[in-house]
Amino acid sequence: MTSPMSPQNTWKQLAGNAAAELIQEGMVVGLGTGSTAAYLVQAMAQRIQQGLQIKGAVASSLATYDLANSLHIPMTDLDEHPELDIYIDGADEIDPQFRLIKGAGGALLREKILASAARRFVVIADSSKKVTQLGHIYPLPVEVVPLAKTPITLQLTRLGAEVKIRQHNNIPFITDNHNYILDCTFPQGISDPAQLDAQIHSIVGVVETGLFINMVSQVIIGGPEGVQIFSR
Amino acid sequence: MTSPMSPQNTWKQLAGNAAAELIQEGMVVGLGTGSTAAYLVQAMAQRIQQGLQIKGAVASSLATYDLANSLHIPMTDLDEHPELDIYIDGADEIDPQFRLIKGAGGALLREKILASAARRFVVIADSSKKVTQLGHIYPLPVEVVPLAKTPITLQLTRLGAEVKIRQHNNIPFITDNHNYILDCTFPQGISDPAQLDAQIHSIVGVVETGLFINMVSQVIIGGPEGVQIFSR
Repeated sequence: MTSPMSPQNTWKQLAGNAAAELIQEGMVVGLGTGSTAAYLVQAMAQRIQQGLQIKGAVASSLATYDLANSLHIPMTDLDEHPELDIYIDGADEIDPQFRLIKGAGGALLREKILASAARRFVVIADSSKKVTQLGHIYPLPVEVVPLAKTPITLQLTRLGAEVKIRQHNNIPFITDNHNYILDCTFPQGISDPAQLDAQIHSIVGVVETGLFINMVSQVIIGGPEGVQIFSR
Repeated sequence: MTSPMSPQNTWKQLAGNAAAELIQEGMVVGLGTGSTAAYLVQAMAQRIQQGLQIKGAVASSLATYDLANSLHIPMTDLDEHPELDIYIDGADEIDPQFRLIKGAGGALLREKILASAARRFVVIADSSKKVTQLGHIYPLPVEVVPLAKTPITLQLTRLGAEVKIRQHNNIPFITDNHNYILDCTFPQGISDPAQLDAQIHSIVGVVETGLFINMVSQVIIGGPEGVQIFSR
């Protein structure tokens, strides 16, 4: 756990503040989950207090909902607004092609649903999240139907993964959607993320993977040199 | 509701009995769900009573589990046996390429998990289930994460579907896996099932579709002329 005033947290805050500046009058905004996203939520709340009016915000987790709601951000949901103008969230790893690993926090499915419903997906992170190849720091989380965990584990092993079912207090961690998470480590890293994602998706009983491919519009990195913005 | 002695039920029973003959000593057997699968379970129970020994059977639903268990079939699960020797189940529609629509009963995800875990998938049906093109009689069921039902409905509509959320007593029907079912009607039928399946799978929040493609090894049809067996 880094202390609130650590350089890393300062960098996260820089990225969160910069992303809050992208929010414009009348937008529907998707809010990510995690420590970097929390800085975004705080900066956005401040802008709203200063007069910015948005249509509403959709949270990717209960934790984010509670934080945003406590800061008087007007909340909505995907039934009322199935299309978001912008979705802003952190990531565990970001590669040079803007491909991501997400899901260390366990909210990958809701995060991916919001990213997919958004016209623009902006990733915010401190500079430690930039990697040259995915899969060397974080395992890839795969959300699966509990009934199928053993056959899916077999098939993931055949794809080269070392598979561990995510545990919480010595029992399987249950996602918001009543599923399990299989954390997959690839000892050599992930050489072709798009192919791997397709292979894993073709396994019956897999609900989602933590690979986000062709989804990101912009990456905002906070680091020792300040804020860097990468667009495509 | 057809009466127990209707010709259709006689044909289902013919198919179920013929499939039970495929089960051999020491096999792990997956059991489907529905009226035709129930005849299989009864015929298999009889063979076991007469001395056939199997390693165990895995049920695709609680209803099938209860029936098989009550008939003294030894039950197991995918954690103990992640690979099945054979899976036998009915279908709502079967096309000439052995592609299926399944899921009118709401158990499509578990059925697909078992079909995918099996070395051989044998479909049993009465002759009314044979169609020249899928999608004219039954809607295609799509199992989705409840949170994402509205954006997914939007995207399915763009693929040409008329979408209805499946209801039970005027509230959304909840699957065994805590999801919703969107029943998709394609007014012109489904011209390219493989492409449609891939398109639907690429929508984030879709858990499974009722299209079974490249999964079937054998089709056993009971009809007015007796039993017909089609292999590939």
